[in-house]
Amino acid sequence: MALCHCRLGPVWHWQDLWQVFKWKEGREEMSSTVAQVIRCKAAVAWEAGKPLVIEEVEVAPPQKMEVRMKILFTSLCHTDVWFWEAKGQNPLFPRILGHEAGGIVESVGEGVMELAPGDHVLPVFTGECKECAHCKSEESNMCDLLRINTDRGVMIHDGKSRFSINGKPIYHFVGTSTFSEYTVVHVGCVVKINPLAPLDKVCVLSCGISTGFGATVNVAKPTKGSTVAVFGLGAVGLAAAEGARVSGASRIIGVDLHPNKFQLAKQFGVTEFVNPKDYTKPIQEVIVEMTQGGVDRSIECTGHTDCMISAFECVHDGWGVAVIVGVPSKDAVFKTHPINFLNERTLKGTFFGNYKPRSDIPAVVEKYMNKELELEKFITHQVPFSEINKAFDYMLKGEGIRCIIRMED
Amino acid sequence: MALCHCRLGPVWHWQDLWQVFKWKEGREEMSSTVAQVIRCKAAVAWEAGKPLVIEEVEVAPPQKMEVRMKILFTSLCHTDVWFWEAKGQNPLFPRILGHEAGGIVESVGEGVMELAPGDHVLPVFTGECKECAHCKSEESNMCDLLRINTDRGVMIHDGKSRFSINGKPIYHFVGTSTFSEYTVVHVGCVVKINPLAPLDKVCVLSCGISTGFGATVNVAKPTKGSTVAVFGLGAVGLAAAEGARVSGASRIIGVDLHPNKFQLAKQFGVTEFVNPKDYTKPIQEVIVEMTQGGVDRSIECTGHTDCMISAFECVHDGWGVAVIVGVPSKDAVFKTHPINFLNERTLKGTFFGNYKPRSDIPAVVEKYMNKELELEKFITHQVPFSEINKAFDYMLKGEGIRCIIRMED
Repeated sequence: MALCHCRLGPVWHWQDLWQVFKWKEGREEMSSTVAQVIRCKAAVAWEAGKPLVIEEVEVAPPQKMEVRMKILFTSLCHTDVWFWEAKGQNPLFPRILGHEAGGIVESVGEGVMELAPGDHVLPVFTGECKECAHCKSEESNMCDLLRINTDRGVMIHDGKSRFSINGKPIYHFVGTSTFSEYTVVHVGCVVKINPLAPLDKVCVLSCGISTGFGATVNVAKPTKGSTVAVFGLGAVGLAAAEGARVSGASRIIGVDLHPNKFQLAKQFGVTEFVNPKDYTKPIQEVIVEMTQGGVDRSIECTGHTDCMISAFECVHDGWGVAVIVGVPSKDAVFKTHPINFLNERTLKGTFFGNYKPRSDIPAVVEKYMNKELELEKFITHQVPFSEINKAFDYMLKGEGIRCIIRMED
Repeated sequence: MALCHCRLGPVWHWQDLWQVFKWKEGREEMSSTVAQVIRCKAAVAWEAGKPLVIEEVEVAPPQKMEVRMKILFTSLCHTDVWFWEAKGQNPLFPRILGHEAGGIVESVGEGVMELAPGDHVLPVFTGECKECAHCKSEESNMCDLLRINTDRGVMIHDGKSRFSINGKPIYHFVGTSTFSEYTVVHVGCVVKINPLAPLDKVCVLSCGISTGFGATVNVAKPTKGSTVAVFGLGAVGLAAAEGARVSGASRIIGVDLHPNKFQLAKQFGVTEFVNPKDYTKPIQEVIVEMTQGGVDRSIECTGHTDCMISAFECVHDGWGVAVIVGVPSKDAVFKTHPINFLNERTLKGTFFGNYKPRSDIPAVVEKYMNKELELEKFITHQVPFSEINKAFDYMLKGEGIRCIIRMED
């Protein structure tokens, strides 16, 4: 039953009303746990590369400038897997991973003025204090206080974890730790969103999709009719392609080593597919030939240095802009002949699609609500929380794009 | 005597009237040579590194889409010296060098509609055909047809030189060859300017000053109050500093190996001086410390790869933009850790300050006329044409900035 025929007011569907009902219910239900330790389930990574174990954990109340939220949906991103595998970084275990999620505020700590229990929110792995030079700059989103820190497993306020099992602390992950029914997050990393937005969809805006989409629409900024190359057709790359599609690009060239990705990528606007394995010459030369001089914009989403170089060198001289999104390894070196810059090419990098989380992400949620941005096609799998390790399996096998993990079975 | 007290019309000085008189006189005087070979003096570079020799040369009439002009003033740029020394490039001799100049159109070839004898013009080493993709792009000035070509010593139209001595051709240089009383230039490389502009001043806008000034105001675009680093305090670097000064930068840090340049650089807005020789650590680290995280913009005007890397790595994360202006050697390799891009730094290059010669340079001349841009301070020496080799001596010794060569003794 839908109320969309009503001519006297806003057109609401019953699903919308149900959301509001649940939201109000949430406000009342949660108030009883305020200032209490909450015992709940969390998926703990006890050691590198071993399956997560659903444990009963204790979640301490939020401290100054912190928010405790109930996670309803979370999804698995490649960065979780990277830190779970603990390759090329300092391992930090036991840890609760997870950073793409949607939830509802349960309670807030001292000093939190703009959020209240019941608010619908997305936690984000990077933050916005609104006071530092970066937050005050119109160009940067790299907050001095809350910029991503993958080595820190504790809260900024007191250097302690809010998670424990029998008194033994469990480390946080990038300030979010969303593989838990409840988590505690710094208020600067919490985005208040439209309570009508379905959390099982918009949760993917916490990281990968915003990163790729923003890299295109905020940084590369292709104009209508332009040509765009996207390197790497994972979730971030497909979101970058979606940004190019929404921007009206006439040709979107997907570059990936796996030819089976092209079929899926077509849904995101990719019009042509190039597999570097099919050529003996550098892929930038192939793309330059395909496009009579190079693409107008390119977006690099793999993190491999060779791809970064290709992405830069395949843009047109005079006006080409290449944007690096993929995170490189610690010993990576980007190399090119400087004449490639002199010939009026631009290379820039971006972090979280240049979105300031609190200021900008609510509008991206609205883009989804207004059907300007499609999120459903990114969501290829769903599992209940008890089967969270299946999400890891899908990602390790390269199956699908995003797997949503439902916290409530 | 000045007419600036007149209240009934535009305020003209007698110098202005004299310019117009000379301009009209030029139109009449020059008509007699139309379609004729002109015999005149030119400074010929017979071989690499040897003093130029003033010779009598024959200058053929302009062919299709060409303009023959009388050069009144020319100046020496480092690029002339570079090709005169013929280091690291294919030597092409005998040749008539010179590419910064101001002159008056003597006659035009078939198809030239927008220029007529008597017009005041600046020849430019790069052109604007107004028809290719670059000319039609709002972002590029790298015309497909007329982009600089240092290896070509002949005209595009017929692959021949317009200069000869006793029937033996003398090569052109970058399509301009201004070290001659008369020269032939493709119409796309000729900028028609305000006839009231003093050619002995605005001739320096043909190359170096526009390159540096445009790199700052068109590409780096520092905002009011921002911090700017300029690497290399030669003519181009000082023009880049002048661009930062005009843009209202609060700190302009000049970087150069010669401490005596600071005194001169102060006239161009440079507020602080850094000599890499005074430090053991990389100069980018010094600048990052001086500026609490890096400068907002940097402009590299030396062409040395190490300086390009420093210029890039000294800009602030989140919003810093580095612009490469200096031309690198053929075997140069730009290297940096890609995380420097990921942290939201931008690196771009520019060519002739991103100015489209015919479309944009007339407005730069007007900036000079309106006293928004000072050119006099760039001009430190003057010599008559007969002493052109002195200009080379000044530049080789690093004395001054620009030496104007007067063609008429």
